[in-house]
Amino acid sequence: MATMQRIQTTGLEVFYQKGYFNTSIDDILKELSLSKGAFYYHFQSKEEYFISIVQNLLFRKVYSSLIEPIEGQEDPLNKIVACFDDALETAEHNFLDYGFVLSNFITEFNGKNPDIMNYLQDILKVWEVNLVTALQKGKTDGYVDRHVDSEAVATYLISSYIGIRTLMVEGNSKMLRYKYIQQLRQYFKLIEHKEPA
Amino acid sequence: MATMQRIQTTGLEVFYQKGYFNTSIDDILKELSLSKGAFYYHFQSKEEYFISIVQNLLFRKVYSSLIEPIEGQEDPLNKIVACFDDALETAEHNFLDYGFVLSNFITEFNGKNPDIMNYLQDILKVWEVNLVTALQKGKTDGYVDRHVDSEAVATYLISSYIGIRTLMVEGNSKMLRYKYIQQLRQYFKLIEHKEPA
Repeated sequence: MATMQRIQTTGLEVFYQKGYFNTSIDDILKELSLSKGAFYYHFQSKEEYFISIVQNLLFRKVYSSLIEPIEGQEDPLNKIVACFDDALETAEHNFLDYGFVLSNFITEFNGKNPDIMNYLQDILKVWEVNLVTALQKGKTDGYVDRHVDSEAVATYLISSYIGIRTLMVEGNSKMLRYKYIQQLRQYFKLIEHKEPA
Repeated sequence: MATMQRIQTTGLEVFYQKGYFNTSIDDILKELSLSKGAFYYHFQSKEEYFISIVQNLLFRKVYSSLIEPIEGQEDPLNKIVACFDDALETAEHNFLDYGFVLSNFITEFNGKNPDIMNYLQDILKVWEVNLVTALQKGKTDGYVDRHVDSEAVATYLISSYIGIRTLMVEGNSKMLRYKYIQQLRQYFKLIEHKEPA
């Protein structure tokens, strides 16, 4: 299992840095000091290998950093702000991930591999559904304004998050995070439940 | 000049579809039915060629669709909403451009070619500066709340726009545009100048 973990982690790094289509299995074997036989014992193809990385590493990463922290929590808006802020701070210290692995791969596979695209989009869908659920629960619990369109808010949140991660590529990520979180709070002022005056 | 236009337009398409690093000059010459001699008469290298595309096509495209429509206008918030809505509608009908050419290239060149990255980021900077200028003018003219942090708003706007273009890749772009614009209007409610009660 430790080997499998290593094979996938290294694969993610190489695919992310060089791009999926620029990377050959040989590139990865070299990086891993692994024989072709050992690799093909686990995976039938580069595509199958990549999909296993998406399902294990990519999904788990998005789940643990962006979904789990708000799942089932009271006060979803404050939880979302805290969760996005944490995730952006982690990204700040991880140069590789400035651009957000998930959206980078979506960009790379667009129009090129519908199968892999489906796996990538499934992650976005799980994220979206969980945001919608959290917002709906927030309405019931009295934290979110009842007139808010939860699906539209979820889309807007995911958009802005993907975008800020792309912008962080250009450096000064600390300042970008600060500006982003400040405006996210502003935006949430209109969405939160107001006490009757 | 018509030839130059064609050489650049085709180059942009091929680089965007296949990725810069996956594309050779030969691929482009084949697409253009152009001789190596004719190509190298205009450009010394693939990099120089790409930079000319960035400066001419990419910059002009961002300028005409996202900067010019709000430049010097009264009522910047409504102008920004209309401009973003128009640009997203255009993108809807242009499959190639769902993912936003500029941010796709920023993703691709991240950590790989600092020179080209600078050219790409310059476009983002011009966009940002113009948004900040429009918002500041909006304060003076009484359309934008005086306490708003124009730079943070500009960053937030650019982030969400880049993100929604990436999401549009997954299809149902009409619905995504609708949700995005709806939430953009919500957000602007907190930024607009309020009459004293």
